Formats: sequence, C-alpha cells, structure tokens
Amino acid sequence: MRTAEVFRLSMAHPGDLSELERLILDGTIRASEVSAIIGKTEGNGGVNDFTRGYFTQTLMGLLSKHLGKPPAQLIREVPCVLSGGTEGVMSPHYSLFCIREGDAAAPKYPSALAIGTAFSAPVPAEDVGRRAHVESVAGAVRQAIANAGIERLDDVHFVQVKCPCVTIARAAAAIAAGKTPLTNDPNKSMAFARAAGAFGVALGLDEIKAEDFSDASLLGDFSIQSPRASISSGVEVESNEVVVLGNSPAWGGSLRIAHRPMVDALDIGAVVDVLGDLGIVASPQVSAADSGRIASVLVKCEPDRRGKIRGNRHTMLDDTDINAQRHIRGAVAGLVAGVIGDGRIFVSGGAEHQGPDGGGLIAVIASQARGRA
Amino acid sequence: MRTAEVFRLSMAHPGDLSELERLILDGTIRASEVSAIIGKTEGNGGVNDFTRGYFTQTLMGLLSKHLGKPPAQLIREVPCVLSGGTEGVMSPHYSLFCIREGDAAAPKYPSALAIGTAFSAPVPAEDVGRRAHVESVAGAVRQAIANAGIERLDDVHFVQVKCPCVTIARAAAAIAAGKTPLTNDPNKSMAFARAAGAFGVALGLDEIKAEDFSDASLLGDFSIQSPRASISSGVEVESNEVVVLGNSPAWGGSLRIAHRPMVDALDIGAVVDVLGDLGIVASPQVSAADSGRIASVLVKCEPDRRGKIRGNRHTMLDDTDINAQRHIRGAVAGLVAGVIGDGRIFVSGGAEHQGPDGGGLIAVIASQARGRA
Amino acid sequence: MRTAEVFRLSMAHPGDLSELERLILDGTIRASEVSAIIGKTEGNGGVNDFTRGYFTQTLMGLLSKHLGKPPAQLIREVPCVLSGGTEGVMSPHYSLFCIREGDAAAPKYPSALAIGTAFSAPVPAEDVGRRAHVESVAGAVRQAIANAGIERLDDVHFVQVKCPCVTIARAAAAIAAGKTPLTNDPNKSMAFARAAGAFGVALGLDEIKAEDFSDASLLGDFSIQSPRASISSGVEVESNEVVVLGNSPAWGGSLRIAHRPMVDALDIGAVVDVLGDLGIVASPQVSAADSGRIASVLVKCEPDRRGKIRGNRHTMLDDTDINAQRHIRGAVAGLVAGVIGDGRIFVSGGAEHQGPDGGGLIAVIASQARGRA
Amino acid sequence: MRTAEVFRLSMAHPGDLSELERLILDGTIRASEVSAIIGKTEGNGGVNDFTRGYFTQTLMGLLSKHLGKPPAQLIREVPCVLSGGTEGVMSPHYSLFCIREGDAAAPKYPSALAIGTAFSAPVPAEDVGRRAHVESVAGAVRQAIANAGIERLDDVHFVQVKCPCVTIARAAAAIAAGKTPLTNDPNKSMAFARAAGAFGVALGLDEIKAEDFSDASLLGDFSIQSPRASISSGVEVESNEVVVLGNSPAWGGSLRIAHRPMVDALDIGAVVDVLGDLGIVASPQVSAADSGRIASVLVKCEPDRRGKIRGNRHTMLDDTDINAQRHIRGAVAGLVAGVIGDGRIFVSGGAEHQGPDGGGLIAVIASQARGRA
Repeated sequence: MRTAEVFRLSMAHPGDLSELERLILDGTIRASEVSAIIGKTEGNGGVNDFTRGYFTQTLMGLLSKHLGKPPAQLIREVPCVLSGGTEGVMSPHYSLFCIREGDAAAPKYPSALAIGTAFSAPVPAEDVGRRAHVESVAGAVRQAIANAGIERLDDVHFVQVKCPCVTIARAAAAIAAGKTPLTNDPNKSMAFARAAGAFGVALGLDEIKAEDFSDASLLGDFSIQSPRASISSGVEVESNEVVVLGNSPAWGGSLRIAHRPMVDALDIGAVVDVLGDLGIVASPQVSAADSGRIASVLVKCEPDRRGKIRGNRHTMLDDTDINAQRHIRGAVAGLVAGVIGDGRIFVSGGAEHQGPDGGGLIAVIASQARGRA
Repeated sequence: MRTAEVFRLSMAHPGDLSELERLILDGTIRASEVSAIIGKTEGNGGVNDFTRGYFTQTLMGLLSKHLGKPPAQLIREVPCVLSGGTEGVMSPHYSLFCIREGDAAAPKYPSALAIGTAFSAPVPAEDVGRRAHVESVAGAVRQAIANAGIERLDDVHFVQVKCPCVTIARAAAAIAAGKTPLTNDPNKSMAFARAAGAFGVALGLDEIKAEDFSDASLLGDFSIQSPRASISSGVEVESNEVVVLGNSPAWGGSLRIAHRPMVDALDIGAVVDVLGDLGIVASPQVSAADSGRIASVLVKCEPDRRGKIRGNRHTMLDDTDINAQRHIRGAVAGLVAGVIGDGRIFVSGGAEHQGPDGGGLIAVIASQARGRA
Repeated sequence: MRTAEVFRLSMAHPGDLSELERLILDGTIRASEVSAIIGKTEGNGGVNDFTRGYFTQTLMGLLSKHLGKPPAQLIREVPCVLSGGTEGVMSPHYSLFCIREGDAAAPKYPSALAIGTAFSAPVPAEDVGRRAHVESVAGAVRQAIANAGIERLDDVHFVQVKCPCVTIARAAAAIAAGKTPLTNDPNKSMAFARAAGAFGVALGLDEIKAEDFSDASLLGDFSIQSPRASISSGVEVESNEVVVLGNSPAWGGSLRIAHRPMVDALDIGAVVDVLGDLGIVASPQVSAADSGRIASVLVKCEPDRRGKIRGNRHTMLDDTDINAQRHIRGAVAGLVAGVIGDGRIFVSGGAEHQGPDGGGLIAVIASQARGRA
Repeated sequence: MRTAEVFRLSMAHPGDLSELERLILDGTIRASEVSAIIGKTEGNGGVNDFTRGYFTQTLMGLLSKHLGKPPAQLIREVPCVLSGGTEGVMSPHYSLFCIREGDAAAPKYPSALAIGTAFSAPVPAEDVGRRAHVESVAGAVRQAIANAGIERLDDVHFVQVKCPCVTIARAAAAIAAGKTPLTNDPNKSMAFARAAGAFGVALGLDEIKAEDFSDASLLGDFSIQSPRASISSGVEVESNEVVVLGNSPAWGGSLRIAHRPMVDALDIGAVVDVLGDLGIVASPQVSAADSGRIASVLVKCEPDRRGKIRGNRHTMLDDTDINAQRHIRGAVAGLVAGVIGDGRIFVSGGAEHQGPDGGGLIAVIASQARGRA
C-alpha cells in the first residue's frame, strides 16, 4: 500500500532548494520518493520567465546528486510544474509530492490522496495548440491515472499539466522547416497550449468526447471546460508533463483532496466550500489549528475575457503595463490567501477552459485529522 | 438639517464623467450639491499617472458649465481625491459625495453620515514630508470637522487627504531657489507626503500630540498611525485637500459609516467586522439584497515593509517590474471585492502610518435600511 | 501664397499647453492658423494610454477659448495626432503646424513645406483593420493632398494618420449588435488599425493598387509597405485623421521636408542621409548651428517580428514586462537623438507596413537657411 | 608571454552556455583558460533578476565538469559579471575572456590586451555602500592589476566590478543582528553598492585619494567619478569580483582596448572616438570588414538624475511602469549599436560615479589587424 505525502516548502530565490535538501539529509524523505513538484516561482509567468528553468535545473542537479542518475534522465521522470508570478501576497514555495512504497500498516482512512505522473512524447512546434496536442495530453492523463491506481474517474480531483509553447525562435525554426505553427506570438502560443492541455484533461477524464471539438474550439468555445484541469505553459518544456491527484482506497496516509469550480474571480463561496468538503471551517478565516491541516492549495483563474466582472468593467485586458495574467493572479490570490490565512498558495493564471469561463477552480489537500498535514 | 447622499458612478475612461452629467441633467442632484469626490482611475497610481489630472480637469469643466464658476476656482472648493490603479478586479469608479441643504423633514435615524471638506494653503516643495506639512494637514482636518458639524471626534470614521508631492522638476526648482527638499526621488516623495498626511490626521483627531513626533518619525516610527487616515499623494495638487466623513445626529439621510483597522493584508476579519458594524452579514459573501445597501467601500493597504506576511516572504518590495503599491492594491482588492461581491471599491496603496504597520484600514458607507443606498 | 510654420513645443505634463498659449498671447501665431499637431506624450502608448486624450481635451479647450468654436467641432477640424511613450532620451513635446494665409511676398525658395489635412467619416468597430478601413484612409489622404495644393505625388514626403482601434468595450458593443470585429484583443486591434492606415496611405499615394491586396494582406504580406506612411492608433479617435506634409512651389516660407526609409533599427545611414537631403551634415552629430535649423523629426520603427536584427536575437517580442513597442521606440530614439543631438523627436512604434519590414522611416523638416527653423 | 583572447558568444536563454561548451569540445579553448566573463542576460536588471544566478550556476556547472573542481570553488576563482536587461536592440551574449599561458612566439604588436582578476572578501550587509566597501573594492582592483602584470596605471582602460547589494531579507538579518544597513530599499542599495564600486576603482587607480571623500560623497558628490569604472550590483554575489582590462607590452595577442568617457546619453562623439583610437572608422556606421575586428563593446550609462538631457526634460525618473535603468540602457544601446552595426554590446545602467555625471563611458576591444577579432 502506497502513501502520499505532501510538503510545502519555501524558497529564498528560484534556485533555492535548501529546504528539500534538508528533508533528504535529515532522513524525513528519500530522494527516490520525490514524485512531483508543483510550485510558484517569483518570475513574471510569461515567455521570458526563466525562474522556472532555474528552479528545475537546480532541482534536477540536487536529485541527481542523491540518486546517481543524470539530470537529463530525471527531468523526464519527475514532473516539475512551476508557475511563475507571486504577485501580491503570494509567497514563493513549492509543494513536494512524495510516494512512499510498501507501508504494511492498515490504512487509517477509507481513502486517501493518490498521486500518478506521466510524460508525453515531445510536442512539435507546429502541433502546439492543435488536436494532436490535445490527444497527446489525454494519453498522458490516462497513463497517470493508471499509474496512480485510481479506478473511478470521479475520484480524480486535480490534473496538473505543463505544456510546451512556441517562442519566436521555435516558431521561426518550424517555419524554416516548412511547418505552420498556429501563431508566432509567444503569449498567444502560451494561451493555445493551455487550451490544448485543458481539452486533453477533459478528454482523458471522459468529460468530453473526441467528436465534441475541433481545432477552432480551442480558445473559441469556452463552454467546453474541465473543472479539474490546471494547465501551465512555458518555454522550458518540450513534452507534456502530467500530475494526477485524487483519492483512492488503495492508498494509505492521512491526506485527502477536494476541488470546486470558481464561477468568477469573486467566488469566495467556492473557497469556503472546498474547505468544507475537507471538514475545515472558515469563519471568515481558517483557524490557526485547522490551518495546520492544509498541505497544499491549488488555484487557477482568468481575467474575464468579456471585460467585465458581475457587470462592472475591469481593466486587466486593456493594460499595456502589466500583463493580464499577473493582474488576475494577484487578485485571486488575495482572496484565497485571505480565507486560508496563508500566502503559500499556488495561484496560476491562464485558466482558459479550466473551470467556468471567466472563473477557474480551486483544489485543496488537507489532513483528515487535526495537526497532521 | 443637512443630508448626505453618496452615488457610486462608473467611468468608461478617466475623462468620462457622463454618469455625473446624467444625474445633473435628470435632476437627481444639483451641481451645487457636489461637495467631494473620491475615486479610482485606471492609471498606475505613480508619479507619472496623469489619469487623475485628466479626470479632475473634466470634472471641473463639467461643474463649471453648470455652476458658472471658473474651473480654477472650483478646484479650490471641491476636493477631488483620486487614487490611480485599478489592479485586478477593481472597477474604475468614483464616489460622489453630495450635501443637500435645508431638508425640513424629521430625521429617520438617530445619526447619519456627515461630510465636511477643507483646503489648506499650498505646500512648498521643501515642506513636503516635514512637520510644516503635518501641521498644514492637521489644520485642514480640524476645519473640515467643524464644517461637517461633527462634535465628537469619535464620530469621525474616515479622513481622506490628498497631499502634494515633489517631482523631479519641482525638486529642481526648489533647489535652484536655495531650498532643500527632503528628497528628489518622486516615489520617495510621495511616500513622505502620505506620511505627513497621516500624521496630520492623527494630530487633527487628537490621536497624537505635537510633541509625540519629530521629522524623523515620518516613515521612521511606524507605531504612530491613525486607523482613520487615508492619504493619497500626487503631482496634480499643490494644497492638502481634506474630506472628513463621520456620523452625526445633526444630519438627516439614511447613510451611516463605520471603519476598522486591518492588521495585515490577509485580515478578512476586519472586512467582515466593519460590515457587521453596519448590520450587514457576509457568509461568506454579502447577499445581493444587502449588497444594494452598500454605497461606498474605502480601503488603504500597504506591502509589509519587513518583507513578510505572517512569516512568509512576499516579493512585492523586490520587484523591479511592478511597483509594490500596484501589487498590494491588487491583492487586497481581490480580498475585499470577494467579500463584498463587487469590484467598485476604492483600494489605495501607500498606507504608511494609516492603520497598523503592514496593514491598513477599511471604511464602509451603507444605508441603514435595505434597498436604500 | 500660403506659408507653413512649424513650432516645436515642450510640455511639463500631458495637459500642459502653456507654450502654445504663450505663442497665441504674444501674437506669434493666431489660433486660427493652427492646422495640425503631431506630438509625443509621456504615456505608455498602449490601449490604456490616456495622456493622448488628456492633451487633446486641453488643446481643444484652449483653441475653443480663442476661436469661439465648441471643442466638439474643433476636434473634427484640427488633427491632433499624438503618440504615447517617451521612452529613454525622448522629451515630451509637440510639433505645431501652422498655415499662414495670403502672404504677398515673393517666395524665398523654389519650393517649401506644404501642409494639408483631412478627416474621414467615423470607422465602425467591425471595419477596423479591413478593406473598408483602408479605403476610408485613402480617401482622406487624397483629400488632404488636394487641400495642400500638392500636384505631384512625389512631392509628398510624410503622411501621418491617426486611426481608431477597438477596445474590449467597443468590441463587445459591436458583437452585441451582430457585427464581427476582427479581434477583441485591443493591442492586436491597434496593430490591424495601423496596417489599414499604412495600406490606405500607399493606396492614396498610388504606391499600390486596390487589386494588389486583400484583407489577409494586412499584417500578412509585409512586402507591401509605404516609406511615407506614419500611422498611430488609439482609443480616443473614431475617424481617421490625416496630415499630409510635402514640398510645393505654391507655398512660401523657408521650411522643407525630406524622408528616407530605414531598413532596420540600426540604420544610422538613413538618419544621416535624410539630413544630407536637407543640406545638414552630421559628423557624427549635427552641429549646434545646424541643429537650430531642424524644426521637426518624425520617425516610425518596429521590433523586427522575426526575432532577430542582423542575425542576432533580440528579446523585445518575448518580454512580458515591457511592451515591444516601448522597447523599440526607446532604442531607435536613442540612435536618432544621438545623431540629431536633441531628444525632442517624434519616434512612434507600430510601423507595420510603414517602411521596410523590421525597419521604418524617418522624415525631417528643416529650414533651408541657417538660423531660420 | 601570456595571450588574451576574447570570444563573444550568444545565448538562446540565460541557462544556455552551449556556445562555450562547443569551444571547449572542439578544442578552440581549454576550460582552464577561462578567466572571466562579462555578459548581458535578458532579465530586468533589478533586484529580482534571477537570470544572472541562472547563468552563473550553469557556467560553474559546465566548468566544473571540465575542470574537476567543485562549482563552489570556481565561483570564487572566475569572475562572472552579468548585467541583466537586453532592452531594445541588445542581443543576449557574453564576452569570454581567456588567458593562454606560455606562448613562446614573439609578440606581433608593441602591446596587447592584458587581463587580471581578483576577488575581495565577502562584504557584510552593513558595509554595503560605505567606506569599508570602497576600500574592499580598491584592494581587489590593485590585486587584479598586479595579476595582469600591468605596470602603468594609465594602461588600465576598463575595470569591471560586481558588487553585492542588500535585499529585504539581508537587511532584515543585519538589523536583527544589531547592524545598521545603509538602506533596506533594494533598488537604493544597488545604487549605493555601485557607487562604492566606482569609488573603489577610482581609489585603486589613484584617481582619487582616501581623504578626498566621505560616506556622504557616495551618491552625494557626483564630481567624483572614474571614466574607467564599470560597476554592476546584484543579489547573487557576496564578494566584490574584479576584472581589470588594459594594454601591456608583456602580453602577446592581437587585441587592444581603448576607452572614452561619455558626457551624456547623446554623446555619439565618444563612440566614434573610441573606435578611432583603435583605428576603426564609423562613417556613419562601422563597415562590415571592420566590424569583424571588434571583439567586445562595454558601455555604462545613466538616466540624468537632474531630469534633463541638454535642456530637454526626460521622463525616465518619473516612470512608475518601467525602471529608469531599463529606459537608459535601451536608449544608449540603440545609439551604440547603430554606430557599431551590431546588437551584441554590453550596455549596463547604474553608472553613478562611472564617467561624467549624467553620462558614462565606453570601452571597445578590437583586433589590431583586419579580420582577426
């Protein structure tokens, strides 16, 4: 029986993995138990955010040292999904997902957090944001669910995918090779890549069928969405990296995950409800005691593309100075951190097709007993 | 018996006063009843934010047309306090404060919203951020309280001051004239100007005495603060403009104001409590019915200068790409708008000495009866 | 015989027209002689740059006061073409183009600067960036050439057009009315609007024929370009505003204009050559004496969309923090101001189809005799 | 007899050292010959620019692999001086300075490029920007000159120093330890650190004496400056790292270095003159043939703190959206790249006390014969 453990660790800078190293050195975890990382680095979250690559290089170097495998191999085995941008009250941190094998003890709870990961083949630049990309993601999602040993798709609560996007250079190379990338605007490419990831999750979870969409549906038909898909996109990956999180009776441990869609950026109800699903009360803020049970908070959000929130004009999409994704991350993080009472939350923008149009989703992992996270 | 009315109006752009014009044209208000404006424009909120000047010019032109007074006179009679920056979910809007004279009807409530305004003399560049500036503000605050007819200082709940700051050009002119401005860094100057405003409010409200502080206390001793001071600073004013808001038995009308300090940027409790002071429940969000009672929401906030919030590092002060004030406004607005369910809130950064260090304050004006705001 | 005069005036802020007012008050010019303004304001040059609207409102108010016509009429008579963004060494300023009628004196030079202006009808949101927009511009260009009395199209050296673009709000309104705007991304819309303007100039100058292009050519076929087109786009206009500048034997005065295409952002040769066309030597900088002859410098430029300049990668298009147009304006202004020795130059980004792909163009107006600008 | 070689290498991203690896693998250089790197990475150049740390980590990992020394040792042996920010036309690249020992051939030229490096002890946070910091730099400069074997101080043409600065976290730690850092504003700290570096170079080169300045002179008396000092500051170093570049008869090789002060940001004359010192003509641009001789271009510049350039107002210091250093780097790089015809130039902001007030300096390394760089 496997056990999932989650550690929420802080960084002094994007190359600072000292808290992870300490856990390994003091024997709390073995390096081989590290199965995935989902984190927030303090870059801008855009095409030219190199904090993700910096963190990843440092992580792989560290694991390499302890595991005796080359970094180039590890990077294809351990998903490291980073979202740049710790706007406002967010604190740079990463959730470390560990799998402990072969714990013979009887399970404490009927079901517990289960983790599965998978990597797709590299996505050619000309496929980014198109059906081939969607299918590549869906295949990896199914594989990760199988790896997690989750039998009911309803038990999947959060699927994180990191998708490659197209830079000016990659687009130029593809064009020179006679291919036609969807766009050579890098920010646009990141958006299409996220759409492909969301469709891939929806397809992998049987939320939609292959015939339900065409290439034009991506960033076109926003009624298609998955409330369990969380997609990041960045220049530093070439394959789709997938982390599936759910609950399973086949897993031990005390953690549990829940999720809720957010209808818009003001949906405080979703935040309170997802906590309620885990037996945690926010009135209006989670108590210090309950706060200790929370192991990870994962949020996706989006500046409403129609330019209004509940009828009032917002200015995020018209701002030439600050990228709209930075705006919305800061706002939603302010709301969620206020309810949770903690800035170590993962709030990622670019929620196209991830939760309701103009909204997003929230997933929380918490211990099923007080003081156990 | 005077009556205070508050209208919350939206803007399509910073020069759009069409909603105010409509109120005048349809007879809802008379131009002469306009006593103050507090609003959020969609600039960057910094030294080079000209959206405030643009709005002000348009406002004064409009009032001039209806009142037959020159704009240059009106600008010294009607405080127009604008804070730039509608980060995240905030919606560009302005609260219009009107005073209706001579309503003979018996008051409906034991006390109601009272408004008083005042203008100081122009502040020389070399005085900005120093004791002379503090005293200038305090004098104007006392005058505005008298104008409002508020007898007990405890009944004052919110004092908005707009202070002049020093630009590169103003500093150079002062230096050429043999004066020594406190700083020639415009962003620094804005911070000192806000500090002087806060000290001035505290002094005017008898929260501190003249001997409690020196020039070095401004931006130096953060234990000195007023939970009722809200200070903006900008290039477009030369005098301190003051708006005092409180409750008074001498005023009619159905509105009432309350305030609460915010201990930090995650203080959702303060938001819920100030609503509770006005008989409005947020569980977790204000209901649509109660939302209609809310006439104005006024918030000050600040990126914690110690670099941490509740023990976790934030990155606002180390960010060369986005000004720290833009970060914190977006985050706190996300929280407050989520509880209120409305993005038309005034959230202003630069809360030095305005509420607890690292936090700020919130004031809300609401109707005392349902459906009356 | 008409005479064109050009005054280059500085601003303390975007609402500061005091230098123009001084020229009127001291009798240097009459308000009725003001025929066009081309200027740089210190905004961000993007969709949310309101410095242009602020300047325009102030200008029209000032002219209204002196001419006794309402601002709403003047705004349709006097083109006020502003480009936001004074990055780097650029200094906020505006070139004031005046036409003096009926000067009976014999002309001093065989030909001299001629000015013509025109306004198109308003452009519906759904036409922006499409053929109807191109034709609207071309018609206005032909009308302005006729107004200038320029007989040979070769004598036209610079055509400035200000085109309307689509904001989130305008796009939503058009969609609600059953129309299909080309895009609802405001920055994208500004680019398409500039393309339509450039095609319109090329068409109006007979550089291309109506059958040479389709809607897909705009931002699609960059071999189509006009080395005399300078297009700005902004939220504050609804019609195309056109200013044609050329040389004509029918005009008196001492000024003359020349232009050169710039092949890329490093094309210092074009700068030196256009000065040479006017008899001004830069070795390497224009002398102080000759600098006094220069009345206006007008430049368009563009971040090379292929991601490289002379084989070396640039990062302008991949930058999520600073808009690419701000990058290129700052760089090209640094080059041109260094040769001219003066930061009062108009350098405008967004040069799609305006000069060679990846480059742009430069026009200079100078006195034909020393000390006369 | 030692020989200095300089390679100018491009990067696809801040962690891309593949061009260096290729030089090592194909035998062009030995890893042990790498003595220093001066480069431009595509970050923001501010406190939160982690592209420098990313590059450095990658470089040290690469050298470690080839030299068999741990990265932690190499980082104290090979100065890696990076300036973030490739605004405008600049292309991310690094100049690789190699020293080849024991070349027995007779020197081709009377003198040639000489390189010397040195590291100071770590600078405590409370020393940053004060006399102790200055003296620490001066000592390292003298040591680097000795290492280079340069006998006449006049033969030193460029001294690059990378100084540590104070982040919010470092300042807080120092304060907790009872120390008093000069400032806890990170951007301010970077400026003071650069000032200390410049004073240290001036002191080390005997341009000033120890009694010529006090702590208040740093960022206070701008008449004190060194036209040969180029200082960067960043969070990723704790010691002062020094690279001295000059000409010496004791060195072989074909390269030579020259430098010129720049009086302001428009000083194109300095660019042309420093090329002339090396026998290269720019008329107006360096020819393709001569361009091949240029091995490295090193520039420092500064937004004029008085708010004007040659009498015209600039807006760099009043801009809340774009850091002033980003503005000036983009402008000056536009000028220099235009003359050189190449975007692979090192243009670094923050030139306080480095060259004339409001200006800066330029150094160029070029081959003494055509086609040899």
